[in-house]
Amino acid sequence: MTKKIGDQAGKMFEYFGSFLRKGIFSVLSVGPVPDHIAFIMDGNRRYAKKRNLLDGAGHRCGYLALMNMLKYCYELGVKYVTIYAFSIDNFRRRPEEVQSTMQLILEKIEDLIKEESMVNQYGVRIYFLGSLKLLSKPVRLAAERAMVATSGNSKSVLSICLAYTSSDEILHAVQECCEEKWDEGSALESKGAGNGLVFLKGNKNGKTKPSIVVKDLEKHMYAAVTPDPDIIIRTSGETRLSNFLLWQSANCLLYAPAILWPEIGLWHLVWAVLDFQRNFSYLKEKTKLS
Amino acid sequence: MTKKIGDQAGKMFEYFGSFLRKGIFSVLSVGPVPDHIAFIMDGNRRYAKKRNLLDGAGHRCGYLALMNMLKYCYELGVKYVTIYAFSIDNFRRRPEEVQSTMQLILEKIEDLIKEESMVNQYGVRIYFLGSLKLLSKPVRLAAERAMVATSGNSKSVLSICLAYTSSDEILHAVQECCEEKWDEGSALESKGAGNGLVFLKGNKNGKTKPSIVVKDLEKHMYAAVTPDPDIIIRTSGETRLSNFLLWQSANCLLYAPAILWPEIGLWHLVWAVLDFQRNFSYLKEKTKLS
Repeated sequence: MTKKIGDQAGKMFEYFGSFLRKGIFSVLSVGPVPDHIAFIMDGNRRYAKKRNLLDGAGHRCGYLALMNMLKYCYELGVKYVTIYAFSIDNFRRRPEEVQSTMQLILEKIEDLIKEESMVNQYGVRIYFLGSLKLLSKPVRLAAERAMVATSGNSKSVLSICLAYTSSDEILHAVQECCEEKWDEGSALESKGAGNGLVFLKGNKNGKTKPSIVVKDLEKHMYAAVTPDPDIIIRTSGETRLSNFLLWQSANCLLYAPAILWPEIGLWHLVWAVLDFQRNFSYLKEKTKLS
Repeated sequence: MTKKIGDQAGKMFEYFGSFLRKGIFSVLSVGPVPDHIAFIMDGNRRYAKKRNLLDGAGHRCGYLALMNMLKYCYELGVKYVTIYAFSIDNFRRRPEEVQSTMQLILEKIEDLIKEESMVNQYGVRIYFLGSLKLLSKPVRLAAERAMVATSGNSKSVLSICLAYTSSDEILHAVQECCEEKWDEGSALESKGAGNGLVFLKGNKNGKTKPSIVVKDLEKHMYAAVTPDPDIIIRTSGETRLSNFLLWQSANCLLYAPAILWPEIGLWHLVWAVLDFQRNFSYLKEKTKLS
C-alpha cells in the first residue's frame, strides 16, 4: 500500500516536472535556441569523494545527470549535443581507473542502443569522435555498433568524444588532407597527367608548393559531422577548454557553473541558453564574418 | 605655486602606489608566478560610448591601460605577455574605423621603440604575430622596425597579435610544414636520392603517405617564440576566445572580469594570479601529461 502511494507520488512529481519544463521551454523558444551545445563533464570523481561514494560511483551519477541533460536539450530543440567522454590524456590515469571507466563506457554504450533507450525515443544519431584505434577492441566495436545502429535516426545528434583531444583532431585532419592531395596526385599521375605532384600549387622560386585551405582542414575534422557549438558548458567552475573542440570554439560562449557534473540540472541549461540569447545578435554577426 | 603642489602630490601618490605594488608583488611572489599572460583587450569602443568620448578615444584609453598592465606584469616577473591587438576579422569593420585603428597602431609602435619607452626600460623584446602581409605597408614596416630595434632585449617579451586569427595561424603552420617537407624532398632528389617524395613516410596499400607530427606543426606556429600562456584575461566578462591562441590554450586558465578593457587595473591581475596559484599543481600536472 505504502509502496503504491509512493509510486503514485513519484509519477505525479515526474508529471509536474515535465509540465513545468514544457512551460519553461515554450517561453525560451520565443528567442533563438542554440543548434549545438557541448559539455565538458568535469567533477565526477570529486562528487564521489564529497559524498563518500565508492570508486566509480561518481561516474555512474554523472551518467544519470547526462541522460537528464540530453533529454532537456532535445526537448528544447537543441539538435546537436557533443560530450567530452574520455580524452587521450585520460589514458595516463591509473590503469585500474582507466579500465573501470572503459568498462562503464562499454556498458553504457550497450544501454544507449537498446530499443527502449532515450536515444531511440528522441531519434538520436550517435557519432564517436576521436582516435578510436586507441580504444580496446570491445569498446571500439561497441562504438562502431552504436554508430551503425543509430545511423537511421535523424532528429538529433549526440557526438561522443572518446580518445579525443583537439590537437590530435587537428593533426589527424592535416594528415588526411595531405593523404587526399597525394592520392589525387597519384590518380592523375596514373593517367599520365604528371609526376604525382599535381596537388602542389603556387609558385615560389620556380618550385611548386603544396596548397591546403581552411575548408580542406575542416572537412577532415572528426567534428565535421556537426556545426560548430554555440555554447560549451564546463562544470566545476573551471574556465579551461582542456583540449576540447579548440578549432570549433572560436566564437562560442563558454559557461562554467561552479557545480560538479552530477549536480548539473535544468536551471544551468536555462541560464546558459538565456546568456546565448542575450549575445545572439553579436555572435551571429561574428559567425557571419568568419 | 598650486601647480607645484599638485605635481608634488602626484609624485607622492605615484611613489605610494609603486611602494604598495612592490609589497603586493613580493607577497604574490612567494607562490608560483605565471610565465606568460595573454590579454584579449575587449571593450574599448564600449568604454568610449559609455563615457561619451570621441571615436578612437576608447582605444587611446585602452593603450594607457595596456602600458600600466605591461608594467605590472614585468614588475611581477611575468616574462611573456601576449596581446590581441587586431584580428583578421577586424578588417571587415567600417573602412574609416579600420584606418583610424591602424593609424593609432602605427603611432603607438613608433612610441614603443623610442629610447625612453617602457619597452627599453624593462628590456622587452617585441614580436608581431600574424599575417603581417595583410597590413598596409607603413604599419608592416613599422612592425618590422620594432622587431629589429628590440631584438637585443632579452629580459621580457611582448607578442603583439596583429592581423591574427588562430585558424589562420594553424593553417599557416600546416602550409609551412608541407613546404618544408617538400623542400627536404626536393633537396634529396637533386642529390639523386629519390623522386622528391622522401618526405612521405608510412605505408598503406603499398603507397607512401605524408607524415607530419605535432612538433612539426608547433614549430611553425607564429606563437612558437613563446611558451603556451598560463592565463588568458579577457575583459568585458566575455568567455569566448574569439579565435585567439586556440592551439596554445588547451590547458590555460581563462579569467573574464566584467569590466571594459580601459578599466582594467592592478587588482584584476592580482586576482588572476591568485587563481593561477590556487590551480597551479593541477595545471602543472596537466602540462606535464600533454
